[in-house]
Amino acid sequence: AGELWEEHVGDATAMRLVTSLMRAQQLVLARLEAVLKPLGITFARYEVLRLLSFSRAGSLPLSKIGERLMVHPTSVTNAIDRLVAQGLVTRAVDESDRRRVLAALTPEGRAVLRDATEALVAIDFGVDGLTSGQQHQAYDVLRVLRSTDWT
Amino acid sequence: AGELWEEHVGDATAMRLVTSLMRAQQLVLARLEAVLKPLGITFARYEVLRLLSFSRAGSLPLSKIGERLMVHPTSVTNAIDRLVAQGLVTRAVDESDRRRVLAALTPEGRAVLRDATEALVAIDFGVDGLTSGQQHQAYDVLRVLRSTDWT
Repeated sequence: AGELWEEHVGDATAMRLVTSLMRAQQLVLARLEAVLKPLGITFARYEVLRLLSFSRAGSLPLSKIGERLMVHPTSVTNAIDRLVAQGLVTRAVDESDRRRVLAALTPEGRAVLRDATEALVAIDFGVDGLTSGQQHQAYDVLRVLRSTDWT
Repeated sequence: AGELWEEHVGDATAMRLVTSLMRAQQLVLARLEAVLKPLGITFARYEVLRLLSFSRAGSLPLSKIGERLMVHPTSVTNAIDRLVAQGLVTRAVDESDRRRVLAALTPEGRAVLRDATEALVAIDFGVDGLTSGQQHQAYDVLRVLRSTDWT
């Protein structure tokens, strides 16, 4: 496809890179989801649990979760709804600022997070096809992509 | 988060890489979708149009589209449904193999593809924050990730 493309619109580097980014993300996500499925969570929900576990108080405002994971508020609400229904997270009005809703890990949530992390570490987060050097290299270049100010 | 993680589960390279992969994909996809929205298509539908334009006959079986884009048959069907409703693609039974359904570009589809490609090239497919060298480097390492046999 790259060759055909170059005939049509010139340099294909950016197009190839974006195609690779999309396919690599799909592949890695499918691997992670396959490992998480028996635990009843998706990778999106895993990321929410992990983020909560990293917070000092074990709880975070929903708005902060969306910001950190760079997802739409609706997606955060959906993930939290599911996690609450599963008993892995509680949701409560922040008593120190009643406009905010806080999500917090339950003990069950911590247990699922621990099992999920163990399962993900066992497959090296789906990137065990890369050497450690390649993992660092990929991280460095993706970090540049993430940090690009693009407004 | 990486430091906290290392206290808990050891080396965080793979976890950091996967987090970066997810965030970079979300960011780049949001940039592409913003540019495509005025043209009435998503990046998923853009990829279908592009794939059809690359095929020798200008048409492809739906199964082949899913395979190439590495997406679920349901996602292909949804994308094709929308593209047909928009008049950008036609769908017909393959007369040479009546078990297969072929999708083909319409002249309108080709026109939208051309406009969309122009718009995406203008923003360097959302990766203009990377130098050409970094784009090649990122492509090379993501390609390794994609090609990893993982069964």
